[in-house]
Amino acid sequence: MQKNKEIDIPWNFSPRTDLAIEARELAQEEQKSSEELEGVILQTKQTNVCQITHVKILNETGSQTMGKPIGNYITIESELLKENDITSHEQMMQIVAEHIAGLTKLNKKSTILVVGLGNWNITPDALGPKVIEKILVTRHLDGILPEEINKSVRSVAAISPGVMGITGIETGEIIKGVVEKLHPDLVIAIDALAARKFSRINATIQMSDTGVAPGAGVGNKRMTLDKNSLGVPVLALGVPTVVDAATLINDTMDRMLEEMIAQTKEGSAFYEMLQSMDTEEKYRLIVEILNPYVGNMFVTPKEVDAVVDRLANIIANAINIALHPGITMEDINRFTY
Amino acid sequence: MQKNKEIDIPWNFSPRTDLAIEARELAQEEQKSSEELEGVILQTKQTNVCQITHVKILNETGSQTMGKPIGNYITIESELLKENDITSHEQMMQIVAEHIAGLTKLNKKSTILVVGLGNWNITPDALGPKVIEKILVTRHLDGILPEEINKSVRSVAAISPGVMGITGIETGEIIKGVVEKLHPDLVIAIDALAARKFSRINATIQMSDTGVAPGAGVGNKRMTLDKNSLGVPVLALGVPTVVDAATLINDTMDRMLEEMIAQTKEGSAFYEMLQSMDTEEKYRLIVEILNPYVGNMFVTPKEVDAVVDRLANIIANAINIALHPGITMEDINRFTY
Amino acid sequence: MQKNKEIDIPWNFSPRTDLAIEARELAQEEQKSSEELEGVILQTKQTNVCQITHVKILNETGSQTMGKPIGNYITIESELLKENDITSHEQMMQIVAEHIAGLTKLNKKSTILVVGLGNWNITPDALGPKVIEKILVTRHLDGILPEEINKSVRSVAAISPGVMGITGIETGEIIKGVVEKLHPDLVIAIDALAARKFSRINATIQMSDTGVAPGAGVGNKRMTLDKNSLGVPVLALGVPTVVDAATLINDTMDRMLEEMIAQTKEGSAFYEMLQSMDTEEKYRLIVEILNPYVGNMFVTPKEVDAVVDRLANIIANAINIALHPGITMEDINRFTY
Amino acid sequence: MQKNKEIDIPWNFSPRTDLAIEARELAQEEQKSSEELEGVILQTKQTNVCQITHVKILNETGSQTMGKPIGNYITIESELLKENDITSHEQMMQIVAEHIAGLTKLNKKSTILVVGLGNWNITPDALGPKVIEKILVTRHLDGILPEEINKSVRSVAAISPGVMGITGIETGEIIKGVVEKLHPDLVIAIDALAARKFSRINATIQMSDTGVAPGAGVGNKRMTLDKNSLGVPVLALGVPTVVDAATLINDTMDRMLEEMIAQTKEGSAFYEMLQSMDTEEKYRLIVEILNPYVGNMFVTPKEVDAVVDRLANIIANAINIALHPGITMEDINRFTY
Repeated sequence: MQKNKEIDIPWNFSPRTDLAIEARELAQEEQKSSEELEGVILQTKQTNVCQITHVKILNETGSQTMGKPIGNYITIESELLKENDITSHEQMMQIVAEHIAGLTKLNKKSTILVVGLGNWNITPDALGPKVIEKILVTRHLDGILPEEINKSVRSVAAISPGVMGITGIETGEIIKGVVEKLHPDLVIAIDALAARKFSRINATIQMSDTGVAPGAGVGNKRMTLDKNSLGVPVLALGVPTVVDAATLINDTMDRMLEEMIAQTKEGSAFYEMLQSMDTEEKYRLIVEILNPYVGNMFVTPKEVDAVVDRLANIIANAINIALHPGITMEDINRFTY
Repeated sequence: MQKNKEIDIPWNFSPRTDLAIEARELAQEEQKSSEELEGVILQTKQTNVCQITHVKILNETGSQTMGKPIGNYITIESELLKENDITSHEQMMQIVAEHIAGLTKLNKKSTILVVGLGNWNITPDALGPKVIEKILVTRHLDGILPEEINKSVRSVAAISPGVMGITGIETGEIIKGVVEKLHPDLVIAIDALAARKFSRINATIQMSDTGVAPGAGVGNKRMTLDKNSLGVPVLALGVPTVVDAATLINDTMDRMLEEMIAQTKEGSAFYEMLQSMDTEEKYRLIVEILNPYVGNMFVTPKEVDAVVDRLANIIANAINIALHPGITMEDINRFTY
Repeated sequence: MQKNKEIDIPWNFSPRTDLAIEARELAQEEQKSSEELEGVILQTKQTNVCQITHVKILNETGSQTMGKPIGNYITIESELLKENDITSHEQMMQIVAEHIAGLTKLNKKSTILVVGLGNWNITPDALGPKVIEKILVTRHLDGILPEEINKSVRSVAAISPGVMGITGIETGEIIKGVVEKLHPDLVIAIDALAARKFSRINATIQMSDTGVAPGAGVGNKRMTLDKNSLGVPVLALGVPTVVDAATLINDTMDRMLEEMIAQTKEGSAFYEMLQSMDTEEKYRLIVEILNPYVGNMFVTPKEVDAVVDRLANIIANAINIALHPGITMEDINRFTY
Repeated sequence: MQKNKEIDIPWNFSPRTDLAIEARELAQEEQKSSEELEGVILQTKQTNVCQITHVKILNETGSQTMGKPIGNYITIESELLKENDITSHEQMMQIVAEHIAGLTKLNKKSTILVVGLGNWNITPDALGPKVIEKILVTRHLDGILPEEINKSVRSVAAISPGVMGITGIETGEIIKGVVEKLHPDLVIAIDALAARKFSRINATIQMSDTGVAPGAGVGNKRMTLDKNSLGVPVLALGVPTVVDAATLINDTMDRMLEEMIAQTKEGSAFYEMLQSMDTEEKYRLIVEILNPYVGNMFVTPKEVDAVVDRLANIIANAINIALHPGITMEDINRFTY
């Protein structure tokens, strides 16, 4: 939900996704070849609990093809993220924590500001604010904590700035105002995302060192949260919690026609016509038919409330482990269960 | 959401709707004629704030064609239901109140049990429980209220029994248990519904004197709440808050193909094939493609939280006005704003 | 908060407590001797995480002196209950689970109905409903679960009936209605309590096999939940979450005067007068001064929201462990974290 | 709850109040005369729905005696604030709106930042955040609204910064950061307060042009929100929602002893001793007896959740009316019911 979140913005006529792994799939579909995209490197790894995919955009060519800034995009995928399974979740907290550490450079004295983006009144958009509730904030305890404990924690602050429809203020302005008071060494921004495939909903965590670029390329002037705009590195963490309805219809229809064609020779002329249509054109037709509702609909799973709570827990604890050097999983359970 | 709400049930291979007006539209599409269905009477009325449609199922033929019990189904439709507009909402409260009165037979001494069906943890399913929060309950005040006030109110009780996944108890059993203690003269059951058309979401209130038949015809054995099962008349009130994803895709695709055909002669063979496919068969294909997610997805508007709150207010106050003879809109504002 | 919860009831002119251990202390103060009360047996045990006190009321004499029914009252006391400390909480879950098992007689086929009393809209009264959210309900899964799992769980159902001010229905009537449909072998009722001492707030869990007797002796006619009224044994579990303001003032004043007297000889005449006043008379004076607010005030700790959530978790899991023979602490974490 | 809210601070050994009218009463008790305090002017007015009291602190002498900054403190008192009575609430919204206008200087182009102080997780402290939910924010709509509507609204933004225990950031720093980005012409800060008398809880609205001075004189170094610290005028609005337990006991005991003395000649020596004790000394004794709980307890009414919701509505709408020149009560109902 990075796009289209706060006020209505011009609709982007291509299937929507905030995931680099899906942007890569779409770009490959466009180039009609499974060859790796130019300027992009892909690394994958399978653990016993999840699939880890590292998409590295190396240069301007890769950035253009992918429609995303140069940098690292690491994705953790697992159906277990949707389950109520503390054992696998603890393992994934550790994995996410390691990747957060790998994507950032912190020293003992670093101050970190964690920012929960999104609207707490809309369940699938409330991931960021829910994570903030579970972050171990310590910045105000400096000088109060016993020296021994003080050594094992970094200085962490956390805010949920809300969305423009609630505050009347561009979210980036609030964050920039706070950053200029706090001078943190790192900003971690958490946001709910949109995916193209329903199977990835609530089953994917994406981390990136490129910042958060809400609505990139949609003619939307909202301020990007990155090193450029804030003056400090920004680590973005997100989970797709919704599929855009038009995207779902588009993809379902493609798969449906494929299946129908596979079963019959008839209709091949029509199928070819459909295939010859620009992807964008086809999508635009769906969007037109769904109008005026398209920007307002979302597709989400029934159990989204409970799952978002658990995902917030996983992400918050991964951050807690990554940021506080002396903290163990047992401490985490003690502090935040 | 009457269907498929509590535990997974076999999927019904036809576009899903809980609205009698949509069941009628579907039946007319099936009979490929806009002639009125046999055994069904339709009356419509346009007021300055809403469209009122009265579908009357007269006999077994009508009931079979419509897939719904014999009885009255009154629908209030208005885009204003989604807006934050107290003036039109007050008018619609009055209209709904009058139809509630018309569909029931109460005397001064009647006791009414209002039941809020649905799961309070899932926003679009929480309509019923939210209505219950705003019902003026008076049954426990009998003998305590001053005689003068006592005359202007009926004896009203209200419960939200939860859903089977939360309680482990068939919802109908809880209600039957309470009914047998209370011996009410009427049960009013409020529930969130599924519609076929996104335009009707949160823009429609359906009232019916036939009771609530969750999952009728889906091979689902859950207890129907009606005069038969509870021993007292049941008035059902509902608002569609979700569209089933497969239904949305099915309908969008139909409209899309129509539009494509209108623009070209090509593909007509394929189109004819699609048209020659049984509606059910086509729908089954979509459901298969969406599997294993189909029962779990729903499509709902972004602002569903705020709109459901307002709809709950409208319905609760319509019930408050209908049940308590001496209560004015000013009292309503005083008690429940 | 068992007393005075639903509608205003005549005020009881003695310091309020729902805890048997405090009723015993008060009775001893009355008899001005630390000798054990007649008809009462006391057993205490200190573990590494908590103090366990077993008050056994043996006969009518003990019942009269204590103002409580004949039976067993077991109290777990620990300051750690207020902390965010999963390790000690897991130990206390086990201890509570063992005492639940000890106070009840279940066999493999037993069905248990867990009832969460109290008003979910008032934080310190919401303990019961919050416990219900975390109970493993299984009754609806009978015949669905694989045989192997089915063996390790008992049939458990759970409801939060609300309070009379919300439903218009005597809470006992709702429960009796459901009991008559379900025919459980045991009812477990959870409720928030009032204590006399602030130090016991959120630091005490009381279990009793005598049922829940809301407002006993207060001229309050509400239905007691016990074997007599429901036809099945009732196990009551509660935690004190509030101190009544008049009780707090009364006790503080007593301690204050003691301290002032200890420091000076002056004022002893006044002190003696105060001492010669009937406890009840003194308390009545405080209640009169606090009027008309007395029934409406409560004293509670600032962090009550977070602490009640954790207490609900401890109690729910103690019940889950006690009821389901094959369930381990690891399963508990898996299902309910 | 301005004092002692965020982290534990040294306890102030005098009855606690954030209300100027109570600070004045206390100062008069100290000077043992009902003569007006030097440097203070009092004006009162009774309307048909409320009592309006204007305390004006004219100079340093008044400020010292009152323990509050020079400026205006206007209090609206009415038992009706606690009732569910829309008619009187609409009248009080108008009265509060007029006084807000009177205490501030705005022109057509003014930008206003409304700040909701307090912790949204603690019901009686959640007033500020709840008001923010109902403020008509318009700042982001500039240039989007039709010219006609644009004329009738001022530019309003709104934030709930949270408390230091949640964010790790001094609340004043967040606000100052946002103020430096927004450059508003006025800040309106809403906060829950502590009163001395239970009768004033939820029955009093205080407005002041002196800013918010949390914990003034308590040795607490937290940043004051006023023209000095923020560079723009600050209007403070607050409602007392809690009484500090030690204050309640102190005052109840005073009244109790008075009553006992009135009934008897005995004990007068003790009474004189109590009277001869310094108020501070007596209060310190109570605080010592209540330790270690004193900072953690609060006394609040049972129905605080519902009442705080309504108070938030009254205050938000008073602000909406005061800030937007072209807005009527009907618009208010339309936008925010």
